[in-house]
Amino acid sequence: MIHRCGIVVAGFGNVGRSLVRLLLEKTSYLAERYRVDFSVLAVGDSSGFVYKREGFSREELEKLLQVPRGKVCESGLGSCTRCIDEVFDETLPDFLVELTPANYDTGEPGLTYMLRALKRGINIVTANKAPLVLKFRELMELASRRRVRIGFRATVFGGVPIIDVVRHLAAHKIRRITGILNATTNYILSRVFYDGLSLEQAVDEARKIGVMEANAALDLEGIDAAAKAVILANVAGLNVTLSDVSRKGITLVTMDDVKRCISENKVIKLVAEIDLENKCIVVEPRELPSSHDLAQVKYLLNAVLIETDLNTIFVKGIGGGPAETAINVLSELVELATSLPR
Amino acid sequence: MIHRCGIVVAGFGNVGRSLVRLLLEKTSYLAERYRVDFSVLAVGDSSGFVYKREGFSREELEKLLQVPRGKVCESGLGSCTRCIDEVFDETLPDFLVELTPANYDTGEPGLTYMLRALKRGINIVTANKAPLVLKFRELMELASRRRVRIGFRATVFGGVPIIDVVRHLAAHKIRRITGILNATTNYILSRVFYDGLSLEQAVDEARKIGVMEANAALDLEGIDAAAKAVILANVAGLNVTLSDVSRKGITLVTMDDVKRCISENKVIKLVAEIDLENKCIVVEPRELPSSHDLAQVKYLLNAVLIETDLNTIFVKGIGGGPAETAINVLSELVELATSLPR
Repeated sequence: MIHRCGIVVAGFGNVGRSLVRLLLEKTSYLAERYRVDFSVLAVGDSSGFVYKREGFSREELEKLLQVPRGKVCESGLGSCTRCIDEVFDETLPDFLVELTPANYDTGEPGLTYMLRALKRGINIVTANKAPLVLKFRELMELASRRRVRIGFRATVFGGVPIIDVVRHLAAHKIRRITGILNATTNYILSRVFYDGLSLEQAVDEARKIGVMEANAALDLEGIDAAAKAVILANVAGLNVTLSDVSRKGITLVTMDDVKRCISENKVIKLVAEIDLENKCIVVEPRELPSSHDLAQVKYLLNAVLIETDLNTIFVKGIGGGPAETAINVLSELVELATSLPR
Repeated sequence: MIHRCGIVVAGFGNVGRSLVRLLLEKTSYLAERYRVDFSVLAVGDSSGFVYKREGFSREELEKLLQVPRGKVCESGLGSCTRCIDEVFDETLPDFLVELTPANYDTGEPGLTYMLRALKRGINIVTANKAPLVLKFRELMELASRRRVRIGFRATVFGGVPIIDVVRHLAAHKIRRITGILNATTNYILSRVFYDGLSLEQAVDEARKIGVMEANAALDLEGIDAAAKAVILANVAGLNVTLSDVSRKGITLVTMDDVKRCISENKVIKLVAEIDLENKCIVVEPRELPSSHDLAQVKYLLNAVLIETDLNTIFVKGIGGGPAETAINVLSELVELATSLPR
């Protein structure tokens, strides 16, 4: 028997579209291996939500993928509304998949979507860091009270389930988590250190090849890295929000620093450090000897070093990218969908 | 409210004793953070099981830790029996913790203990690879029918939840898993390649410092690595047992190979490769360029490289050791105990 699982996709940019493409590609794999079939009941962007109670067909999803950004409600493929409550009440989904852009001031619109879903007992899988870094505890407590799950693996570290690794260290006492959590700045610094570009050239290139956030400060000032650190810290047991992070960006790095570090056989990396003993989080450019595990993490890779009372774990993988984020979303959807009571 | 969780510990060697020590150390941490209190109801070794319906006190556990190997039934701390059914029926545990030595011919006594527990609807956490590599599917299907869980994270990669990482890649198509899964042979080869010891000297040293299995062939002939590869392969979706592995040990490596590799800037590692496309598993010494991710994994470290349709994930950490294995057991106990219906 195949378990049909209805999802509402809020946010239809790169990640949302990658997810729908993955669902189309992997339908038979997921049915065969996990006995689960995801049905997209609604898709939302800045124009509102388009929904269909019985779910969109493959052909309709393919058409939706052709719709320009911010225009799903002009697609004519279903009913339209700007009201998420109407979407939930009409489609009765199993999951909200929250993929709207991160707004670190208000968390909106993702935060409201998540709260509305939780109040209705709808499970959530999200790749949007903003609501979590502003209201982690509140969201988790509400989920726990309503006995629903929030999967947020895709918020940190693209295609690597690093959040789960931290969670699985339940009996370890985690002392410190140090990581390179932002792929863009790591790409920029790698081009400077390994390929001889100037900082300016490397920043320009990152912008041109499309790895930079539209709001460049999110990358360059370490906000994205800080947000990921806050999420990891909460999973590891701290109760912190974005404003608790002491943060410096790579805009502080000069070519003089670069030259000196190269002559000293060091590299500069934007490092996020979660110190669980002193309960503090720092994001800043740091000079690392080239033999350091994190110094080996190049270009678009991210990595995390977890130090516990018993051991040290090092995890490395591609940091971001819509396809990697979407596959993390889908993997978590599969896990939650197959473990929910039926 | 604290959730009391009764456990039967089968096997009281290094790992079993480490686990009991951890339980004593971490009682208040686990109660505070997870609201769970583990009560040891029975402990078994080659002399049989000693059990106490209401669970052993801290003082009794400390006394048990002083009892010589193979003599728990002479401790006088509870009732004694050789019959696991009597233990289960008298103590009604939530978990069997299976830590008996791996017997790759029969899987015993662990296999029988696990089957008996499953038939009674008792959850299992195990660090014993043998029953799993002989009867993976049967055990999992029985667990699924009886709606109980088998946690086996501790069977691979000491203190690192690598099995869970593989499991979390639910929507990825895993193409290949390549790993250094045996710490002893990696230690031996590291001493030869990085410190100039002869193979003979390094093997002797591994034996002396206590990192070698009593049956050295388990390490040197790649049986331990093969067993771990079989478990990872099953988690990744293959249906294989130990006899499906094509296996060569490091006993094939000569000092001539070593010298030639060093002159070519290569190292030899005992590599386990799970090829999911061709459904085959190979364990053999391989020559790797020194820039290879796995070539950087030194001494008692283990590592795994997971290649999927979308990305590559690299995980490195301490490979084995009783304390690391015990903490994996305890972390998984915490996770399962806190997620079971109450």
